[in-house]
Amino acid sequence: MRPSKRTPDQKREVSITRNVSKHAEGSCLIKSGDTHVLCTASLEERIPPWLRGQNRGWVTAEYGMLPRATGDRMRRESQAGKQSGRTQEIQRLIGRSLRAIVDLGALGERQITVDCDVIQADGGTRTASITGAWIALNDCIEWMRTRGMIAADAVILKDQVAAISCGIYAGTPVLDLDYLEDSDAETDANFVMTGKGGIVEIQGTAEGEPFSEEELMALLALAKKGISELLVLQTADAAE
Amino acid sequence: MRPSKRTPDQKREVSITRNVSKHAEGSCLIKSGDTHVLCTASLEERIPPWLRGQNRGWVTAEYGMLPRATGDRMRRESQAGKQSGRTQEIQRLIGRSLRAIVDLGALGERQITVDCDVIQADGGTRTASITGAWIALNDCIEWMRTRGMIAADAVILKDQVAAISCGIYAGTPVLDLDYLEDSDAETDANFVMTGKGGIVEIQGTAEGEPFSEEELMALLALAKKGISELLVLQTADAAE
Amino acid sequence: MRPSKRTPDQKREVSITRNVSKHAEGSCLIKSGDTHVLCTASLEERIPPWLRGQNRGWVTAEYGMLPRATGDRMRRESQAGKQSGRTQEIQRLIGRSLRAIVDLGALGERQITVDCDVIQADGGTRTASITGAWIALNDCIEWMRTRGMIAADAVILKDQVAAISCGIYAGTPVLDLDYLEDSDAETDANFVMTGKGGIVEIQGTAEGEPFSEEELMALLALAKKGISELLVLQTADAAE
Amino acid sequence: MRPSKRTPDQKREVSITRNVSKHAEGSCLIKSGDTHVLCTASLEERIPPWLRGQNRGWVTAEYGMLPRATGDRMRRESQAGKQSGRTQEIQRLIGRSLRAIVDLGALGERQITVDCDVIQADGGTRTASITGAWIALNDCIEWMRTRGMIAADAVILKDQVAAISCGIYAGTPVLDLDYLEDSDAETDANFVMTGKGGIVEIQGTAEGEPFSEEELMALLALAKKGISELLVLQTADAAE
Amino acid sequence: MRPSKRTPDQKREVSITRNVSKHAEGSCLIKSGDTHVLCTASLEERIPPWLRGQNRGWVTAEYGMLPRATGDRMRRESQAGKQSGRTQEIQRLIGRSLRAIVDLGALGERQITVDCDVIQADGGTRTASITGAWIALNDCIEWMRTRGMIAADAVILKDQVAAISCGIYAGTPVLDLDYLEDSDAETDANFVMTGKGGIVEIQGTAEGEPFSEEELMALLALAKKGISELLVLQTADAAE
Amino acid sequence: MRPSKRTPDQKREVSITRNVSKHAEGSCLIKSGDTHVLCTASLEERIPPWLRGQNRGWVTAEYGMLPRATGDRMRRESQAGKQSGRTQEIQRLIGRSLRAIVDLGALGERQITVDCDVIQADGGTRTASITGAWIALNDCIEWMRTRGMIAADAVILKDQVAAISCGIYAGTPVLDLDYLEDSDAETDANFVMTGKGGIVEIQGTAEGEPFSEEELMALLALAKKGISELLVLQTADAAE
Repeated sequence: MRPSKRTPDQKREVSITRNVSKHAEGSCLIKSGDTHVLCTASLEERIPPWLRGQNRGWVTAEYGMLPRATGDRMRRESQAGKQSGRTQEIQRLIGRSLRAIVDLGALGERQITVDCDVIQADGGTRTASITGAWIALNDCIEWMRTRGMIAADAVILKDQVAAISCGIYAGTPVLDLDYLEDSDAETDANFVMTGKGGIVEIQGTAEGEPFSEEELMALLALAKKGISELLVLQTADAAE
Repeated sequence: MRPSKRTPDQKREVSITRNVSKHAEGSCLIKSGDTHVLCTASLEERIPPWLRGQNRGWVTAEYGMLPRATGDRMRRESQAGKQSGRTQEIQRLIGRSLRAIVDLGALGERQITVDCDVIQADGGTRTASITGAWIALNDCIEWMRTRGMIAADAVILKDQVAAISCGIYAGTPVLDLDYLEDSDAETDANFVMTGKGGIVEIQGTAEGEPFSEEELMALLALAKKGISELLVLQTADAAE
Repeated sequence: MRPSKRTPDQKREVSITRNVSKHAEGSCLIKSGDTHVLCTASLEERIPPWLRGQNRGWVTAEYGMLPRATGDRMRRESQAGKQSGRTQEIQRLIGRSLRAIVDLGALGERQITVDCDVIQADGGTRTASITGAWIALNDCIEWMRTRGMIAADAVILKDQVAAISCGIYAGTPVLDLDYLEDSDAETDANFVMTGKGGIVEIQGTAEGEPFSEEELMALLALAKKGISELLVLQTADAAE
Repeated sequence: MRPSKRTPDQKREVSITRNVSKHAEGSCLIKSGDTHVLCTASLEERIPPWLRGQNRGWVTAEYGMLPRATGDRMRRESQAGKQSGRTQEIQRLIGRSLRAIVDLGALGERQITVDCDVIQADGGTRTASITGAWIALNDCIEWMRTRGMIAADAVILKDQVAAISCGIYAGTPVLDLDYLEDSDAETDANFVMTGKGGIVEIQGTAEGEPFSEEELMALLALAKKGISELLVLQTADAAE
Repeated sequence: MRPSKRTPDQKREVSITRNVSKHAEGSCLIKSGDTHVLCTASLEERIPPWLRGQNRGWVTAEYGMLPRATGDRMRRESQAGKQSGRTQEIQRLIGRSLRAIVDLGALGERQITVDCDVIQADGGTRTASITGAWIALNDCIEWMRTRGMIAADAVILKDQVAAISCGIYAGTPVLDLDYLEDSDAETDANFVMTGKGGIVEIQGTAEGEPFSEEELMALLALAKKGISELLVLQTADAAE
Repeated sequence: MRPSKRTPDQKREVSITRNVSKHAEGSCLIKSGDTHVLCTASLEERIPPWLRGQNRGWVTAEYGMLPRATGDRMRRESQAGKQSGRTQEIQRLIGRSLRAIVDLGALGERQITVDCDVIQADGGTRTASITGAWIALNDCIEWMRTRGMIAADAVILKDQVAAISCGIYAGTPVLDLDYLEDSDAETDANFVMTGKGGIVEIQGTAEGEPFSEEELMALLALAKKGISELLVLQTADAAE
């Protein structure tokens, strides 16, 4: 029995609100249960120095958490003077996940930075960030298309990308851990997959006992189900 | 004529939503036009080292801005490795403003940190932060009262406190500058006042020509009007 | 009765020694009672990157305190690895105050940095810094004029600027608080004004009870008197 | 055909030299082809503050690279003033991998820090670090046992742990990528497994096209083979 | 011929003004030609953590330079976010030099920090700092003696300590290089010696050609002469 | 009697292994007893900004210690966020020592960085670093010569340079202190000398009693002997 009362293959309610920012070229507020992440995509007509002269653009991501997004207040990273290892790990993951489905050559010499800021946390913030980041990125590109900055038929995003976590809780593989479940799970795994079902990233960690190949397969099957549902939400919402 | 079409003594629409955080002991989202600030109050049963043994508590504030809260994306302060002078100036102001109306002795040996995070900026973020911070602080104290942590009749907050900006725009003193107006104003002044009408803080800066005593008086009169309206919203909202 | 034995509208003895630096283009040591600040103006034939191509110069200020300028030794900011919020607040104020009276276009593409270093502190270091900074800046510009770097009749400084603090001590508005008075004052306010009597900056803070409009007016009247005396010293001294 | 001329399931030659440090309680130099990592385990009779009073110990890891371990010299992290996101990610992974097989309660209130310093890099530094770290940790514990600090029959290490990378190179799943292969691989995956064959950590990343479930399985099969060979080396070497 | 017109064994005019600080327990302004250093000694009733329980005190030093102490303005170290290697090297040298003549056991569990801040620089700032630091330290100890904090006959300072630089300029060993001479000297050496003539520290560096043993001896002879003159000034001044 | 059982003028066994790095243009592992330092020279076709347009190159050095190179584990400097004063002092010394024998004009507009990383420490790490750094630098230059980057007969290194420490232990001047001897020595001195016998750098520090001119001479005589032996090893080894 999950603390969340959900069935093993049941993810949390997800709601996506687009265009929540007056300033950003693309944005959404994604809520997965009590985990709320604000994603904004910012277009800049410049590229990192090491990319110059390659006729390509860049997509990157940054991640942050408001100090009281969590049960106990955390120290503000700007006061600590540096981003934690966890923060850096997550923003590198988001960036890699997005770049996996972007045609950087087609983007041209521009940089899009997707900021994922956790307003409220209840587990699964990195996977919600990836799912929401794709929407912000997509809408930023449509913003550019509307303004003739890219050709009407240019394919910048080759596919969708979304992510979800799974875990082994009380011996059972379950989908989409919330904070309470995550704290007690024996194994915690994050999956990033594309619209066509390809795996972009898989990160599985045994918190207690090591896990077996069979368990890995069970988690992957759950992730596929959950991500297929998220992919629908990503575009359904776009259609509105 | 103001770019915002408002009359000189007209402030922006302000909406306040309380209890927006699952975790914080007190919280609100304050929207003053397109300026949106999330305020959370976090209670901790500890005090700064330099306060030990004095049988008093502490109230402090921190301020931050999401990178794309503004028209152009700003560098994340946690990446820059430090808070800007502007950020520190603002959070010191918020903290002083709150402490002006708190009885730190009555609070007991506890610290309340109010985080003011700007989700979207359109001018006046520091004054909206102060107005919202009072609400989060107030609700945190009521949270404590409900749990018997302070006596039912203890007066921790001696008064309300709220803030608003004024400025001289195109030669005319006007209330509550938005970003566009602020960028062109000759003088910019922030006022922090209590429920009883006392001045807690006044900061006036000539951006162009120096201003006169008469102009200072005109700005103060506008601020009084605006703050009196905010004071009503602070408590009206609490009553709901 | 003031601890300093001064009458309410009596400022401290101020002495100004010009040309105290072998290297700086303009400099002075300003002593306001036991508060001693060394002000040096450094001319550089470069401008900040964001000013390029605008055919204008820049004037900025930095502020520091020697570790034992104060009663208790303070940690050296270079060891702490950063400037405190207070330091940044003060140097931003000094820079703004100076720029209020500088014609940056007439200056040409050059930067003048005024360093205000507190050798000994006894209250009022930021206002003494502003008053002294104007002298260093003025002398730097005369240095340039002498060398033909600016036209003989070019008006770079449109006016003088000077500053003083006032406060409410034991219920009475008084001029120019020293450290002892400042520590006990109910209200502390800093005023920056020009030679023509315009207000450049006003910062008033209630340390105890909020203050009223009448008190603000009384403080402003004291400041006008004090600053008018400082303005004379600034130029009297220059005439020597 | 691999640039390394190795067959798809052939790992590099691995040599392990134990006791290479005069000072450390456990140490080894592990060479996997041209990747050379020095692993030292340092015992300290103290624990992190957040562990106090729990009657448990702690095992942690740090990772570093000498500036010219790589083809191009990299900036020294101590000069940059911070560890890169990559460094932090790797040292967190090493620490988690070790803790997966340590009985922290049996260790007592002590901390063991395993430092993995890359003397020369040619791909696979993080997996070589984990494999070598286990040896240093094991020898540190035997050092303690010899001195009677833990009981003769105490089981501190519940199992072995070792790691290897796999990848899809030119469409073929291959074992143990060197730097040249890694730079061109479409997919790169790191596996951490125990002596009993359980999975402790799996990290798979598509560098080019997403990968399929079948490919993941093929990589896992290769990893199992490689790790089983490493496990023999870890203990064979210990027996010498 | 030296640019300074001095004879090879002639040091600059040195003036020492004691008690220049209202706050410090001991202080002096030492001027060696155009090099001006403010030295303050600060007594604190605490010791560094690593000294606890040893019944001894500590003497340490810090060094700084005002930004425009030099011909070109230097970046403020508090803004750079760290002390330069040069600054750290110098303050470590001053601290070692002082501790060479202090009986830390007789001092008791207290720390004295001597701050040496260069107000104006013209070469030889580190040696002037040491010579002045001894005076500030001495006067701090007499301050303590006057207040009965140490016994009337306690010997805390076992000896005097002073320092001077020498160098080989245009092939000739000369005493006490100023900035112009130092910039062109082939060899630069700093000597720290006690009242009894013992060597506490010697640092010789060939800037151009290596130097010989004979040259080292010549420099040492010059240093002895210069330091013997400084030792007289240190105590002559104290007698006033 | 020395703890090391060596005679007063006997240095430790020194072994030098060249070409230990797959990547660096020049490298060696120098072992002086239990002090082991890895020295690598990295050639870069760029120069520091302040050297531009001068048609000269630059040689610099960096120094580091692995955390468990020492008896007690030291904090990793990249985690501390800065290099210690000691580290900076040492790397500045190594760089100066190397530049003393390099013809920077003949090098051309290139930078060579010599990294000296202490793998294991037992006293004398800075002097072993200098001795080894010269070898890495020499081999880097021969690497360039082989590739025709400098003329076959160009003299970039004008001489050899090597270093050793001496000290006064139990009243006796001794050569080449190891850690145990260094901890108890009354005086510690480091000497850097060229192949022709010139002194490049001398740093002598009294840890206990000041030392005399005679003692300085005795230490210098020991250093000459030790360095003459090192100079032979530097080139003997190159001849192999």
